[in-house]
Amino acid sequence: MIEKSIQIRVRYAETDQMGYVYYGNYATYFEVARVETFREIGFSYKEMEAAGIMMPVLEYKTKFIKPAKYDDALTIKVMVKNQPSVRILFEYEVHNEHGELLTVAETTLVFINAKTGRPMVPEAYFKSRMDRFFEIDKNN
Amino acid sequence: MIEKSIQIRVRYAETDQMGYVYYGNYATYFEVARVETFREIGFSYKEMEAAGIMMPVLEYKTKFIKPAKYDDALTIKVMVKNQPSVRILFEYEVHNEHGELLTVAETTLVFINAKTGRPMVPEAYFKSRMDRFFEIDKNN
Amino acid sequence: MIEKSIQIRVRYAETDQMGYVYYGNYATYFEVARVETFREIGFSYKEMEAAGIMMPVLEYKTKFIKPAKYDDALTIKVMVKNQPSVRILFEYEVHNEHGELLTVAETTLVFINAKTGRPMVPEAYFKSRMDRFFEIDKNN
Amino acid sequence: MIEKSIQIRVRYAETDQMGYVYYGNYATYFEVARVETFREIGFSYKEMEAAGIMMPVLEYKTKFIKPAKYDDALTIKVMVKNQPSVRILFEYEVHNEHGELLTVAETTLVFINAKTGRPMVPEAYFKSRMDRFFEIDKNN
Repeated sequence: MIEKSIQIRVRYAETDQMGYVYYGNYATYFEVARVETFREIGFSYKEMEAAGIMMPVLEYKTKFIKPAKYDDALTIKVMVKNQPSVRILFEYEVHNEHGELLTVAETTLVFINAKTGRPMVPEAYFKSRMDRFFEIDKNN
Repeated sequence: MIEKSIQIRVRYAETDQMGYVYYGNYATYFEVARVETFREIGFSYKEMEAAGIMMPVLEYKTKFIKPAKYDDALTIKVMVKNQPSVRILFEYEVHNEHGELLTVAETTLVFINAKTGRPMVPEAYFKSRMDRFFEIDKNN
Repeated sequence: MIEKSIQIRVRYAETDQMGYVYYGNYATYFEVARVETFREIGFSYKEMEAAGIMMPVLEYKTKFIKPAKYDDALTIKVMVKNQPSVRILFEYEVHNEHGELLTVAETTLVFINAKTGRPMVPEAYFKSRMDRFFEIDKNN
Repeated sequence: MIEKSIQIRVRYAETDQMGYVYYGNYATYFEVARVETFREIGFSYKEMEAAGIMMPVLEYKTKFIKPAKYDDALTIKVMVKNQPSVRILFEYEVHNEHGELLTVAETTLVFINAKTGRPMVPEAYFKSRMDRFFEIDKNN
């Protein structure tokens, strides 16, 4: 299992006139959380894309429990619970600085060969770095 | 049942370097579709909010089947299949000008009294205008 | 001289907690206005880019006189006063439905050959369609 | 004079299909830079707004010299060269991690009493904390 938390400060641009973070903007927070998780694991999404592998989002679900507000220092927790193959499932929890759970979400992404447009298992760039996180689970 | 379709032209700002509409931007398309559906039914979301009723999104799910691209003239079809009470469920389908289904989604919104912060049934502003769309279903 | 007006309805996503259109979002309105002006002149920015010509923005200036608000039906007036060469200067005025002037702005864009990354005069795709708008000025 | 630099990592959502940061998104970077400058000086823009003082942008100018790209770690340098009164002028420089100057910009903001909608000098919340940065200039 992979687990990581990142901090994001809510920008004024991300609020709406309700005084909340606009519901569409969480998608960006989750993107940042995914990319920083990748960076910590030791590889760069930017380089992967430059090498011809894209990761579009297939599915996105989110529940809004409490609103995030301007200038909140949010903690975005990312979890990858199952070993990825062609697809990878990320789960997220968003808490504010008072420890309140604001949002839960999940996204399913797919590895795509940018030339052919077809799904692929990204051995060289990804799998080798990911596998060690799931070895314990395998043995059980 | 309420059903309405609106047209949205993809803006350059909404694309990302993959050449697709960024997955977070569909939330805005669905917001526009909801508001235009309300306008056609005969009431204004803006006025409702000015009168102290807010409609935050509780839940949002979307599946990305094919990417939307820059300058695509998208058709966003909105459906409200069940008579709303405190909550209202919107379902969406996004097609491009070639008739391809790109995205399906749903959002659940809740009517909130802005003063108390509590859920409410918005009789005056909403229910009377909505009810006629669901009368046939009732009789069956 | 080229002159065109387009209508844009302010989206909820574009407001901020001040209840105004966030100042960064006008750039998108001006982009839409430019693209629709191009479309009316008879050519497509999308096709131009597909043919290897890009138009990044070099300079952008804007004055905010009165705020635009949620659901406002804005009129964006675009003007190209001088015949474009490698660069093209667009001027903008934003009015709301009460005829109030909200914003004035200008952007300078440059035609770039996407392969070489160098500025260019886009004869085939642009100049022929633009020239007729500036012929009267030439004769004076 | 006030001077501060902050770091911003370019998000995927902020790119466009040209592969650059969309020109409208710099406004958000500058907003973040202003707010973090305020925080370092010792006061919170959020609290100021909660206390009834708003700071809308009056004027915004920017020159795009080189494009910022996805995942770039940008340095946004903010400068306030003249002691603010009712208005405050921020100047900005954006560099990438190679030290290249990408963008220069300036914004003029005004302090507004949220109740009256009129410009004001924000003594209690701002001026006392700002004045020390400009005392040397005064003496010259």
